[in-house]
Amino acid sequence: MTQDNKARERDRLAALAMEVTARRGVEVTPEILAGESGLSRARIDAIFPESSNLFDAVAERWFAPHIEIMEAVMASDLPANRKLYEFFARRFVHQRAYFRSDPDTFALLCDLGSRRFERVRSYIDLADHYLCELIAQAQDEGYFAKLEIDEALSLINQMVVAYTMPDMLMMLDDRLSEAKLGAIIDTLFAGLSGSDGGARGRSSLHAA
Amino acid sequence: MTQDNKARERDRLAALAMEVTARRGVEVTPEILAGESGLSRARIDAIFPESSNLFDAVAERWFAPHIEIMEAVMASDLPANRKLYEFFARRFVHQRAYFRSDPDTFALLCDLGSRRFERVRSYIDLADHYLCELIAQAQDEGYFAKLEIDEALSLINQMVVAYTMPDMLMMLDDRLSEAKLGAIIDTLFAGLSGSDGGARGRSSLHAA
Repeated sequence: MTQDNKARERDRLAALAMEVTARRGVEVTPEILAGESGLSRARIDAIFPESSNLFDAVAERWFAPHIEIMEAVMASDLPANRKLYEFFARRFVHQRAYFRSDPDTFALLCDLGSRRFERVRSYIDLADHYLCELIAQAQDEGYFAKLEIDEALSLINQMVVAYTMPDMLMMLDDRLSEAKLGAIIDTLFAGLSGSDGGARGRSSLHAA
Repeated sequence: MTQDNKARERDRLAALAMEVTARRGVEVTPEILAGESGLSRARIDAIFPESSNLFDAVAERWFAPHIEIMEAVMASDLPANRKLYEFFARRFVHQRAYFRSDPDTFALLCDLGSRRFERVRSYIDLADHYLCELIAQAQDEGYFAKLEIDEALSLINQMVVAYTMPDMLMMLDDRLSEAKLGAIIDTLFAGLSGSDGGARGRSSLHAA
């Protein structure tokens, strides 16, 4: 079997695993996958030798549309504020569509992801990598003054976390909207900098 | 037994229930509480007639310091940006101290809280009520222009959710800090308004 065929079979089985997860509402084991695919258990084990390999193949399918979205946004000729909005909004809308079409499977897959967080870490790192590029472009355009890129990265990630973290989507769905995300990105471009605006202050509380 | 004595016994048992939860790592049932307190099951049932009453008493103890913090901030003579920072920062620091001192019990109590969300709803509504007052003060001082109070409320809650939601604290603890929260509040005061800054745009993506 060629490497190409093997990659295709791996991806086909990952797709089947996601479909079976949705249908049965449980994590798919190699044993279940063998039964569902009609392949022998030995064949499944040859394609997914480590116990984490099947999970990795499913994660790869899960994040493929996210990567496609990020790459399209990065390759566009938009100004930084429009790019930052599209960077978050398109993945949010994609994720919300999946969630709304099948909340139980979404919750199950997210739970599997958070229990194997170290296996999805590289996708989050990739998003951070692109976000750093966007921040550098924004700073070239005069925004986010007096902030190191990684300071801006952390603050932006925290201020939009309601639109990126699947747990937040499950809790807040109907409170989240593209319009609000747009207002948040506008707020960042109008107000985020390394200047001390004084909110932390130096004085303690005095009763009025 | 007077109403006062009954309230004191209820509170004492709620404190015991929290202590037993921490020690045993499971939710405390009326049966466990009877055993731990040396009271009869009938006496426990007289104090907590509905199954939700014990949970409510625990929630009351849990949120009492939060309410105290919010009331102190509201009664202070600080400008709106300082108040908004203290409003979130003090509860965040309080919550973080509990979490760090006993992460397992914190996780268990939060899980109980999210599974009985309708019972803690009133505490969240109270925080929103105070936050609306703070927004009104900020608007009097010239901030958050062209936004309805409830629009500002929703946007602010979303932008600081990493500092209010216990689940976020458990996931992000070491990425969260008072300095970053201060920078977020500064960003809100410098940049949040109802003006369209253009992040959502009107055009679709074009490759560069």
